[in-house]
Amino acid sequence: MGIPLPNTPAALIDVGRMRHNIARMQAHLDALGVRFRPHVKTTKCQHVVDAQIAAGAQGITVSTLKEAEQFFAGGVRDIVYAVGMIPARLGQALALRRQGCDLKIVADSLQTAHAIAEFGREHGERFEVWIEVDVDGHRSGIVPDDDLLIDVGRALVDGGMTLGGVLAHAGSSYDYDTRDALVAIAEQERSRTVRAAERLRAAGLPCPIVSIGSTPTALSAEHLDGVTEVRAGVYVLFDLVMHNVGVCALSDIALSVLTTVIGHQEEKGWAIVDAGWMAMSRDRGTQRQARDFGYGQVCTEDGEVLGEYVMSAANQEHGIVSRAGMADTAIAKRFPIGTRLRILPNHACATGAQHPEYHALGSDGTVQTWPRFYGW
Amino acid sequence: MGIPLPNTPAALIDVGRMRHNIARMQAHLDALGVRFRPHVKTTKCQHVVDAQIAAGAQGITVSTLKEAEQFFAGGVRDIVYAVGMIPARLGQALALRRQGCDLKIVADSLQTAHAIAEFGREHGERFEVWIEVDVDGHRSGIVPDDDLLIDVGRALVDGGMTLGGVLAHAGSSYDYDTRDALVAIAEQERSRTVRAAERLRAAGLPCPIVSIGSTPTALSAEHLDGVTEVRAGVYVLFDLVMHNVGVCALSDIALSVLTTVIGHQEEKGWAIVDAGWMAMSRDRGTQRQARDFGYGQVCTEDGEVLGEYVMSAANQEHGIVSRAGMADTAIAKRFPIGTRLRILPNHACATGAQHPEYHALGSDGTVQTWPRFYGW
Repeated sequence: MGIPLPNTPAALIDVGRMRHNIARMQAHLDALGVRFRPHVKTTKCQHVVDAQIAAGAQGITVSTLKEAEQFFAGGVRDIVYAVGMIPARLGQALALRRQGCDLKIVADSLQTAHAIAEFGREHGERFEVWIEVDVDGHRSGIVPDDDLLIDVGRALVDGGMTLGGVLAHAGSSYDYDTRDALVAIAEQERSRTVRAAERLRAAGLPCPIVSIGSTPTALSAEHLDGVTEVRAGVYVLFDLVMHNVGVCALSDIALSVLTTVIGHQEEKGWAIVDAGWMAMSRDRGTQRQARDFGYGQVCTEDGEVLGEYVMSAANQEHGIVSRAGMADTAIAKRFPIGTRLRILPNHACATGAQHPEYHALGSDGTVQTWPRFYGW
Repeated sequence: MGIPLPNTPAALIDVGRMRHNIARMQAHLDALGVRFRPHVKTTKCQHVVDAQIAAGAQGITVSTLKEAEQFFAGGVRDIVYAVGMIPARLGQALALRRQGCDLKIVADSLQTAHAIAEFGREHGERFEVWIEVDVDGHRSGIVPDDDLLIDVGRALVDGGMTLGGVLAHAGSSYDYDTRDALVAIAEQERSRTVRAAERLRAAGLPCPIVSIGSTPTALSAEHLDGVTEVRAGVYVLFDLVMHNVGVCALSDIALSVLTTVIGHQEEKGWAIVDAGWMAMSRDRGTQRQARDFGYGQVCTEDGEVLGEYVMSAANQEHGIVSRAGMADTAIAKRFPIGTRLRILPNHACATGAQHPEYHALGSDGTVQTWPRFYGW
């Protein structure tokens, strides 16, 4: 039938799949008895966030204060800024709170805790701060058994701030691809974060919130005792990296890039398409996984997966589509100039970020434009 | 002294370096007796393009029709759209020409040549078409000795269109890193494109324009006999990939990302910064080169290269800065929270595309905002 969009490349969201993904995560976390706070960095799109909240999400997670400002303006009040605070951004955080945003900020060092407390006292603002916990050596945070955890908590409380809780993200969960390993890393994320909370409480400090999450661990957790909320982002669209991790089927991937064939190199078995890395992003997240999809999995315009065909290379505005294994020297007949294809991306967060808007494809074949923002 | 910008991450252009790069390329091509048509996909920024034209560039090259529309609105009339035309975009190209834009389009197949001629006749428009020539098996185009070249030329002329010339891009030049190899690939690009032009002329077809170029070949060409114009893009800012290729010094790289240290993992020797792949792009173009810079080379806020320090890993809004070789366990003292650093990028085209604007840093320390656009 064809998708009613005049221009390619274009980022498509299959709305039915997206709603299915949202419902799946919400039902899973409802069953485990925890609140869900989606990470909106994946889409930066009000339409998507509205659908997440309508399905039961309570509050959002952001990776920049610009996201906080945009979604607060869009009606979301309960926001965690999950990147370590720095003194230079405290004014921006204060302005949000003064406008009525229930913004929570994060610290994992004494220097930052003291800076927040000092700035807060100076401006008469009782910031709510969560302490970042390192559960897997992946990035930031304080390991649960480090006494620095207690020192930071005490610095915040003694400094007159609200110690809201602890927050962790098992980013290393992306490195696994078996059910057993995912269950184990999910349990590690849970148990270590709960351990941090218990240590704070044992020291006489408050720790009402215990917040963890990544898409693989959120979907693999078998119980979440001691956890109060889960965060996850990419689950809403999914992608080839998550498919390789094993937490979604190809048919769950709700994001694709619509592209048009613009030429061929028949002897090489190449079709040249008008989606290059500018449309797909440079993300090659499947490169080190069990199955390398190049720059993406090729599908028909209607979304049928063409199993052997991938985007094997990309320049800025050119992609090369080819068959894995033996060259398809009949590719010009298979995909003549003007043929439209859909490419499933390696990483939905990175691919979406290349596009000013999503084109939301409804089950009735209609398309709506859903703007997304970028920048800082 | 510090850069007067409140927010990080931010894309900085060192205007002095940019002007030096522009002058260098223009002088080199002036000396070789050819016109220069910069590829504006690198920056998508009117301020930069204005500087290129003021220095002597004649016309521009674009990779999307949106670029053509934006720069035509900004006063540029002579534009080559250097990506293979498809029938679905002919209406957009026609609209530009009807508004007075001297837009040239590109074909490398009979199917496209016929489609252009048919559409042109139907709308009474004599499109100027350049034939894309494949000089290195890199991507698109017709190899010079293929009779398809003549067939496409004849289809255009017989179809009532203007055959403007031939166009080639030796994209494989990025794979080399010695002077001899670069001189050789530059000569291959020149000679094969000239050969295509001569074959067209020998067949009684016109071929006034012979257009070639990539940054490495443009800067390495020792003569350009038979060539009428050169195209190049990334030379205007340069980057670490071009440094590894050997066509610029680190001190020529005019683009950097200003970032702030937000935390540490001292035992690992990590400083965590607020520029992740969203600010740097996912481009890992130096990964397969002689020197792998990770996600970028770390410099002080003032631009001094800190040779051993690179951004070794990146998440969406977090970068990890570390010392190559032995971990710097004193990194928290070296780069305390709040420290600002500048990161030189692997690929200026990809990094710039992540930012809504450049911050143009003048030699007097002042900063101007130079917007750039994105999307299709």
